[in-house]
Amino acid sequence: MKLNALGIIYDNGKLQVLDQTLLPNSETWIQCETIEEMCHCINTLQVRGAPLIGLAALLALAQLSAKGATREKIIESANTLISTRPTAVNLKNYLSYLIENINDKASNVIDIAEMFFNQDIQLCDAIAKNGSNTLTENESVLTYCNTGGLATAGSGTALGIIKRGYLEKKINHVYVCETRPLLQGARLTAWELSKQNIPYTLICDNMAAFIMQQKLVDRIITGADRIAANGDTANKIGTYNLAVLANYHKIPFHIAAPDTSFDPSCASGDYIEIEERDSNEVRGIKNLGVFSPKDAAVYNPAFDIVPSALITSIISNKGVSIPGKVSE
Amino acid sequence: MKLNALGIIYDNGKLQVLDQTLLPNSETWIQCETIEEMCHCINTLQVRGAPLIGLAALLALAQLSAKGATREKIIESANTLISTRPTAVNLKNYLSYLIENINDKASNVIDIAEMFFNQDIQLCDAIAKNGSNTLTENESVLTYCNTGGLATAGSGTALGIIKRGYLEKKINHVYVCETRPLLQGARLTAWELSKQNIPYTLICDNMAAFIMQQKLVDRIITGADRIAANGDTANKIGTYNLAVLANYHKIPFHIAAPDTSFDPSCASGDYIEIEERDSNEVRGIKNLGVFSPKDAAVYNPAFDIVPSALITSIISNKGVSIPGKVSE
Repeated sequence: MKLNALGIIYDNGKLQVLDQTLLPNSETWIQCETIEEMCHCINTLQVRGAPLIGLAALLALAQLSAKGATREKIIESANTLISTRPTAVNLKNYLSYLIENINDKASNVIDIAEMFFNQDIQLCDAIAKNGSNTLTENESVLTYCNTGGLATAGSGTALGIIKRGYLEKKINHVYVCETRPLLQGARLTAWELSKQNIPYTLICDNMAAFIMQQKLVDRIITGADRIAANGDTANKIGTYNLAVLANYHKIPFHIAAPDTSFDPSCASGDYIEIEERDSNEVRGIKNLGVFSPKDAAVYNPAFDIVPSALITSIISNKGVSIPGKVSE
Repeated sequence: MKLNALGIIYDNGKLQVLDQTLLPNSETWIQCETIEEMCHCINTLQVRGAPLIGLAALLALAQLSAKGATREKIIESANTLISTRPTAVNLKNYLSYLIENINDKASNVIDIAEMFFNQDIQLCDAIAKNGSNTLTENESVLTYCNTGGLATAGSGTALGIIKRGYLEKKINHVYVCETRPLLQGARLTAWELSKQNIPYTLICDNMAAFIMQQKLVDRIITGADRIAANGDTANKIGTYNLAVLANYHKIPFHIAAPDTSFDPSCASGDYIEIEERDSNEVRGIKNLGVFSPKDAAVYNPAFDIVPSALITSIISNKGVSIPGKVSE
């Protein structure tokens, strides 16, 4: 059994993940042999992106099962993995499915992992198709964080739409927000776009309002970590900032996500837990150093919530929906 | 003749500036002996802050005059200095005054420099007083960039109000936006606030919307690099972002600046030139390194324009005015 994506490789019980904290300077693959190692990879964002986190966790459990672990051990490990990232819902959804459907001998873990892996590729293709139908022509699109091949098993969510839109000449330019504090836009999205020769311009997050004022942006498309029943959407911190700006400048603001990111059990954004991460992420730049006073008091929420009223549409594999009608 | 501020010292013809690019890690003073050296200090932002740039340029000319330069040489050097930073108006205002008022022997350059230096201290005090009168009590205030003792000869503009407001118990907490790309908030404002034991929380610029949504911010106060006749205000890139967010969240948004930052010859923001700076500032962090692809295409405007309609009031040494009536 071999499963291959831009950020993960599973090859007959051997699991490797691309260390996304080192991109774009270095393409380093990490051998991931235990559940503890995968929890570390997820916690440190070496593996990231809501869909990819869920798939990576499944593959770590598949590897554990290949080593002969019992059903009980796998369920216990699944619960450990679920606790690593409370905001992203795919992880919870995939592993809950596994816990409910694992057989007595735990021999079907790899099948479940493979099913979700292949499903994610198809979800990306369907999102790209539905999203591209939303575009007109020669648009300049702004995106946020990384929602591409590094965040999924396929072409991505928001970035998947952008890639397809570019090929179909509906998009001619991409503005990429750097996405502080961990710079997934500057590091990962810029890297993916240059690999695909798609013209882009990198900006600091605080420049987004200015380029909207200059009428340089026709549309904003971002991903989602969790979508509540009423359409409120949790995504990378800074997404709400963009949604408010889009509203003021009358620019369409879209969320792109597979239906696996929908959480109908969550009534609204009020019930989504927002993770807070380490203060040093804000005090400086990971792997480069600190620039603020070393004891600076910091607030570092990893996500924010875009209220459904600010979302023009949610583009999923199922189609394009107007928030408020998402859960119907 | 000795003139002393947090970021500059003039002592009988000897001029030193604190290298603000190295703060807060290192407090390094640069001996500045020629006009070329001062142009370099201004261009590289070792000296920064609209009022301080103007004063530093004046003091460099005073030093040149102390060395026996002619009136013509000083006027020529003043024009060279004016061209370093097109957006900030104090530089232009101070040096235009000097060019008009310099005497035949160029013996009054130091007097003019001293006059503007002492005037700036008084301007800061008057702004702080007027601004503090605007505050209520126990407010949590958000500020941007650095507008304190490092940007002026005195206590600062927006940060001067905040310091006074804290002493008068009208402010109990300050949120500091890091201010990408050059991080004047994270490096300089955080440094000044910790020196004064004022409680602050550092955030990334893209978190501002989220903390406003959480009702953590009662008021926003920023500085200005130039204020047009209609009240449109040029300030550090990202200020417009905050003004739009403040409008959406119904939070008062104030500009604090001396009347020397007003430019009545400029009808509106449409006529203010926006400097673009080096791409590497966005590709990474100065003095730390690059994190994006090394050839990433970048847009790096240094300023943006806040339309007067988004400004609750402009607080100057003259009082508090509602934009649209600024030039009256």
